[in-house]
Amino acid sequence: MPFEPLSLRFEKKSFVTKIKDIENHVYFLQKGIVEVGIHKEGDEKIIDFVFAGQFFSSYTSFLLRKPSDVYITCLTECMVEAIPYEILQEAYKVSLLANQFGRIITETAFMERVKREKDFLSKSAEERYLELIERRPEVIQLIPGGRIAKYLGIHPESLSRIRKAIS
Amino acid sequence: MPFEPLSLRFEKKSFVTKIKDIENHVYFLQKGIVEVGIHKEGDEKIIDFVFAGQFFSSYTSFLLRKPSDVYITCLTECMVEAIPYEILQEAYKVSLLANQFGRIITETAFMERVKREKDFLSKSAEERYLELIERRPEVIQLIPGGRIAKYLGIHPESLSRIRKAIS
Repeated sequence: MPFEPLSLRFEKKSFVTKIKDIENHVYFLQKGIVEVGIHKEGDEKIIDFVFAGQFFSSYTSFLLRKPSDVYITCLTECMVEAIPYEILQEAYKVSLLANQFGRIITETAFMERVKREKDFLSKSAEERYLELIERRPEVIQLIPGGRIAKYLGIHPESLSRIRKAIS
Repeated sequence: MPFEPLSLRFEKKSFVTKIKDIENHVYFLQKGIVEVGIHKEGDEKIIDFVFAGQFFSSYTSFLLRKPSDVYITCLTECMVEAIPYEILQEAYKVSLLANQFGRIITETAFMERVKREKDFLSKSAEERYLELIERRPEVIQLIPGGRIAKYLGIHPESLSRIRKAIS
């Protein structure tokens, strides 16, 4: 890529992107855990947790230049690399490599969304919890149970029951 | 693009892609309506309707070369253009234009999945039905109510109630 990404540090509980912000970056998470969610009737619905080594962004806002309807917040201190919108779009006009990069991270993001959607339609909360802790065992230590329950779309008491049943 | 897509015709009710097939194409729908869904406990869950002018594919299967867990079927006679996997991958290695094309259709597909996921989390079935018929008024004539109900994730009787309430 013909450019250097920005290096940024975010405090625990700080926002990378707030609801109604226009997202100006695609981020690569070097260290930490990020939560992506929406607001519904004063409550949060958690859409995703992002772990080190993954790209993230309020990508619809980034692509359409419209206010974000998701928030992105740091569950821990986070180190990220950020690629600004204008620089990426300039590279997309001329660079094969930039377009391969953009295509492949978008393919990955697409497959993650589809997987989550299918899992919601076809798997129980317990199955989805087991998959999550198998894929990312660190969530049990690093993410509060209440937030995992919100991610699974269940009550915290249901998560406690699941945890008891599998232990 | 340095290649000609294939032109294909599918009968009403025929399958473009079956569950467990490895998806070998990205398709562009020239004419007709396509349904994408999964099976769950012997029943179908409809993930998407595709209309003329849109791209479609069992894209995760296409990208990962793994058996599809979705089916793609034609609700009407369909005319499609199809781009084979090998040809697209060859083009991705060398062609700026092919990568721009792949990136942009993947961005579009990503945004559609995210929108549907957020709508499921934040909107009622009635709101989602109203949005669907506003965006695609032809669904009322062309897609059986039972299939629309499955797409919305509600019982056919609930869809009848919604239709009465808004008429």
